[in-house]
Amino acid sequence: MNIGIVGLGLIGGSLGLDLLAANQDSKQDSEINSQQNNYVWGLSRNPETCKQGEAIAAVNIADTDIENIPDRILAQTDLVVICTPIAAILPTLTAIAPKLPSHVIFTDVGSVKAAIVEPASTICSEFGQRFIGSHPMAGTAFQGILAAERNLFQNRPCVVTPSEDLEALEKVRSLWQSVGMRVFECSPAEHDRAVAMISHAPVMISASLIAACQQENDVKVLNLAQTLASSGFRDTSRVGGGNPELGRLMAEYNQSAVLRSLYAYRQTLQKVINLIEDQQWDQLEDFLAKTQRDRPFYVPE
Amino acid sequence: MNIGIVGLGLIGGSLGLDLLAANQDSKQDSEINSQQNNYVWGLSRNPETCKQGEAIAAVNIADTDIENIPDRILAQTDLVVICTPIAAILPTLTAIAPKLPSHVIFTDVGSVKAAIVEPASTICSEFGQRFIGSHPMAGTAFQGILAAERNLFQNRPCVVTPSEDLEALEKVRSLWQSVGMRVFECSPAEHDRAVAMISHAPVMISASLIAACQQENDVKVLNLAQTLASSGFRDTSRVGGGNPELGRLMAEYNQSAVLRSLYAYRQTLQKVINLIEDQQWDQLEDFLAKTQRDRPFYVPE
Repeated sequence: MNIGIVGLGLIGGSLGLDLLAANQDSKQDSEINSQQNNYVWGLSRNPETCKQGEAIAAVNIADTDIENIPDRILAQTDLVVICTPIAAILPTLTAIAPKLPSHVIFTDVGSVKAAIVEPASTICSEFGQRFIGSHPMAGTAFQGILAAERNLFQNRPCVVTPSEDLEALEKVRSLWQSVGMRVFECSPAEHDRAVAMISHAPVMISASLIAACQQENDVKVLNLAQTLASSGFRDTSRVGGGNPELGRLMAEYNQSAVLRSLYAYRQTLQKVINLIEDQQWDQLEDFLAKTQRDRPFYVPE
Repeated sequence: MNIGIVGLGLIGGSLGLDLLAANQDSKQDSEINSQQNNYVWGLSRNPETCKQGEAIAAVNIADTDIENIPDRILAQTDLVVICTPIAAILPTLTAIAPKLPSHVIFTDVGSVKAAIVEPASTICSEFGQRFIGSHPMAGTAFQGILAAERNLFQNRPCVVTPSEDLEALEKVRSLWQSVGMRVFECSPAEHDRAVAMISHAPVMISASLIAACQQENDVKVLNLAQTLASSGFRDTSRVGGGNPELGRLMAEYNQSAVLRSLYAYRQTLQKVINLIEDQQWDQLEDFLAKTQRDRPFYVPE
């Protein structure tokens, strides 16, 4: 397949690395498969990133301007994966769709889907193109093309959004399966509710812990809390100490689902507060025994 | 020093291992120091645990009944460390204090101090003995004597509670320093507020996340959330999926400080919810930028 990757960061870079590495693997398997090789072109706002992407073999060629990607390469492109931050997905699509042929299928990697898939499909349809939403759930603590790594997607889940265009859906599904992902299909609304619960709301829940601790106005107690904090605090506060722009975008682009999760959370927290106020220790222990039993449904031991 | 350890679990066992290992170290340094060797006796409810404690050299001798520890050993005891769960500390002290000489200094390892130190001091004073509260902040994910390990306490913080009896305070401080801990002195109330913030409240905050997720009544979304949960959910939910009895005891024995922390937390969470409801994205990003800046005060990178 001929693939364009727009936005060469951790995700875009790692995707390119795996796609191009697959060429080597298939060559080793059998030379006659070489016509099935992937060709990957890339776009990044930063010329340095383009050079780095080429240097680490995440892309065959990259440029800051789609006009500088040779026409014959654009004409043969099957799939374009938009790997920019959420806020840039629609503007990017608006800018590049007119430069690409009508058979091109677009997808993205954004962590919200409802705010993306419908407007993106509208933009694409104007040029006879198709858009399928994707959310590959993979990452590390690092960012940027130099953090890109092989096998980042291996065995990780990826959501794709439904489409009546089964050919387009199948191509996007194949892309993620080719880098080792387990692909699940669900509606943008279902996706957004699920990730609000397990990913977006936890950022707010975790950040609120840090902020609440910092509100301590007895300086000795504050210093002591900072000194005594250990692995429990480290883990519970981790995602609340993450990239603030990313946290903002989650809330901004997934507002209603994030609020829905936070309302459910607030209610549960209040229930726990009530148990402690009322000294209902057996019921509190039952509650904690249930959360202990339920957690492995999310994160198997 | 001659030391009794009551309760041979992870903490008691690891303490004994380090104290007895120090004998070997000091012998190697200089034979004339051998009179400074530690002698460690232990008590456990479980005869098997007593045997295991002796076998792994966490104690010189151990028994289920203090009556079976030779009188000459009890008579020469300097320090007794009560390493039982919180709920057993005061009953244990009541049971063994009458069997020990008046010069003995008691301490404990409980994660709450106000509910322990005053009544424990009262029990001890009846026999002319002294009590200093301790909270060595160390642990692993495992429990029991067979999980005991060398150097568990190395470089970890330990709180000791103040006393007018400076000799007793110094002995307890020395004990923890001898196993490598950084010792901090603070009042029971200060300790309890600090650990409520960074350790006890996070258990409730984290457990509420698991319970809120489980409330999802759209089965497809629930299954998807369980499938998509990854490292962010893993970390944020970890302490909420821990030992329910321990969580209950934290709340039961540190009720007012845990509630105080949860009230502060609830208020902060509501502030975040308001920002999202009001679409104040810049303010939300500022809030998250502050939690990102503040987190390293607790857990240095």
